[in-house]
Amino acid sequence: MEKKLFEKKISSKKIFTGKIIELYLDEVELPNDKVVTREKVKHPGAVGIVPLNREGKIILVKQFRYPTNSALLEIPAGKLGKNENAADCARRELKEEIGAVGGKIIHLTTFYTSPGFCDEILYLYLAIGFERKENNPDEDEFLDIVELKMKDSLAYINSGKIKDAKTIIGILLSRDYLNLI
Amino acid sequence: MEKKLFEKKISSKKIFTGKIIELYLDEVELPNDKVVTREKVKHPGAVGIVPLNREGKIILVKQFRYPTNSALLEIPAGKLGKNENAADCARRELKEEIGAVGGKIIHLTTFYTSPGFCDEILYLYLAIGFERKENNPDEDEFLDIVELKMKDSLAYINSGKIKDAKTIIGILLSRDYLNLI
Repeated sequence: MEKKLFEKKISSKKIFTGKIIELYLDEVELPNDKVVTREKVKHPGAVGIVPLNREGKIILVKQFRYPTNSALLEIPAGKLGKNENAADCARRELKEEIGAVGGKIIHLTTFYTSPGFCDEILYLYLAIGFERKENNPDEDEFLDIVELKMKDSLAYINSGKIKDAKTIIGILLSRDYLNLI
Repeated sequence: MEKKLFEKKISSKKIFTGKIIELYLDEVELPNDKVVTREKVKHPGAVGIVPLNREGKIILVKQFRYPTNSALLEIPAGKLGKNENAADCARRELKEEIGAVGGKIIHLTTFYTSPGFCDEILYLYLAIGFERKENNPDEDEFLDIVELKMKDSLAYINSGKIKDAKTIIGILLSRDYLNLI
């Protein structure tokens, strides 16, 4: 990598270890040789899945998101378990959150949610052809299931009713797959 | 809000105050009356702007993102200053990062980058009709400017060459505005 676009780690200090994240305060050397501190949140990574059913509806979950102090409409999603494969995690979350089993999952894209301070990477999938069973969320997970037509979900993005990054990307990228269902 | 989708704050403890983020460890009461801890990263919020020039090219910046240990292709973006209006911040970042002045900015959408642990909200704009001058990044900001046709930027999303959430959302939502330039 060219020196102009690289920051060299000088030291690293762990500030916090939580259930979800770790926080580090590192010293780095900039391309101009100046040393500055960087705040880095370490995250295990996550998956999000757009479940598109046979009627062309997207199945979303509404759940309270404490940091935002509000309930958000989102695609099913979850953190990667230790050593868990992203596609396996997608299958697990689909079953737990909306009771979707079987069918196909298709990788849409993979992205960083907020690379300025955090290493969280999100693996995004589309699920089609699944069957619906009873869902079984975690004991401490509370959610409502909301089914939305693709057209309405696009309107929800434009009106701000959907305001979660992975959900917006998932819906926008899934439009190209409507012919598969 | 219905009780089923609400978590009540019981206590809050500040763990860390940085230049960008603050970290809190809060106790909350779940809908089942159980008390659990929540890790919450407080972020000042940010803007991202898709600069679409008169030739239909998107102007991106490539910069090293320390948490990802890599240089990423992104739309111009930056954190909100204290009491700074999002549209003013968009104008400021456009000028600093790519030297774009004048023209119109159009609000595309506003979203949370990772609402499971962080309150960061991102205001997303499209910029059209601007003039290009010399850019003037911050003293400690190093970036390359990359111009990309809309078609190529969509291919970059699909191939994983663009892997930043706000950049993906911005490009996908800007497709509908190509007729404006």
